[in-house]
Amino acid sequence: MPHVCLPEGLPGIRALMAFRPETAKPLNDLADVLLRGPSTLSSGERELIATCVSSLNDCRYCQTIHGAIAAHHLGGNEELVCAVKTNPEAAEVSPKLKALLAIAAKVQQNGKAVRTEDIDRARTEGATDLEIHDTVLIAAMFCMCNRYVDGLATWAPSDAEFYRDRAAKIAAEGYAANTIAALARQMLNN
Amino acid sequence: MPHVCLPEGLPGIRALMAFRPETAKPLNDLADVLLRGPSTLSSGERELIATCVSSLNDCRYCQTIHGAIAAHHLGGNEELVCAVKTNPEAAEVSPKLKALLAIAAKVQQNGKAVRTEDIDRARTEGATDLEIHDTVLIAAMFCMCNRYVDGLATWAPSDAEFYRDRAAKIAAEGYAANTIAALARQMLNN
Repeated sequence: MPHVCLPEGLPGIRALMAFRPETAKPLNDLADVLLRGPSTLSSGERELIATCVSSLNDCRYCQTIHGAIAAHHLGGNEELVCAVKTNPEAAEVSPKLKALLAIAAKVQQNGKAVRTEDIDRARTEGATDLEIHDTVLIAAMFCMCNRYVDGLATWAPSDAEFYRDRAAKIAAEGYAANTIAALARQMLNN
Repeated sequence: MPHVCLPEGLPGIRALMAFRPETAKPLNDLADVLLRGPSTLSSGERELIATCVSSLNDCRYCQTIHGAIAAHHLGGNEELVCAVKTNPEAAEVSPKLKALLAIAAKVQQNGKAVRTEDIDRARTEGATDLEIHDTVLIAAMFCMCNRYVDGLATWAPSDAEFYRDRAAKIAAEGYAANTIAALARQMLNN
């Protein structure tokens, strides 16, 4: 049961966003810029970074929804998402993404764990300063989201189809637009 | 030296915000809502939560600037900020704030560390659901900011007066407005 009284029927961060729309807006704006905005990293690659950090933080809701969004962007390849979560160095992704995932895993521990050699490896594999910056901020952002979702003990549905359906909507509409649409639908139903 | 090429002369998150204004906007908006927006917690209390989490994450820039802002809001009482960082349970703050600081310290470890008894204690001391929600999100937000600032190895000035001066500006103008003003001043100087 959630630690505070949240609107019923909404899972994870969506319940928190309905509870506190003032903070939902900048959180969704940040997600849209970092995960869907113009970038030389694909949305699938960026969602994989979010998924791996959420997995390291053992946040069920975030790793499942962002894993489903990553799979959606990767042509439905759920096996690849699972492989990247389990062992990113052995997964079939680019050497650059492996180096960025290694940086993200360091950020998950703490910021100071990122060493010059981690950055050098990413640069050697072709990562730009902006890609390195965005990787660190995506990883840091999910250290926030995971703590927000689990720190208030929100509900995580167990049905995989729920996440696939939601992932398709977010991939089509974006984070901010989808949250507003969901809240409007909820209000119409009440 | 920072891990990516940042504008010179700007410390901590300010250099990152100048490097990536697209992500600076939602980050500042979130800080303004959570730390300065309408709330039954004072700005001083909210900045103390931010300071304590940043101290637990050993982030020098964040704990010093937010400690200075907290002190500014608390009539310049730097001793109180230091006492809260060192031993919040023994510091001269309200029982409610002590309970919220204990929740924030749990969030800093990870979200699942927050237990029902931590929430019950805060409620017994008079905390509302919104205050508990905001405490968890402030703590989570600084787990992001600390990792962002340290994960890219940004510069933290050692001069305490620098932080006091900056704290007064942020307290007067807010996070978003102050960042925009600082960037405009920098552009005029270049």
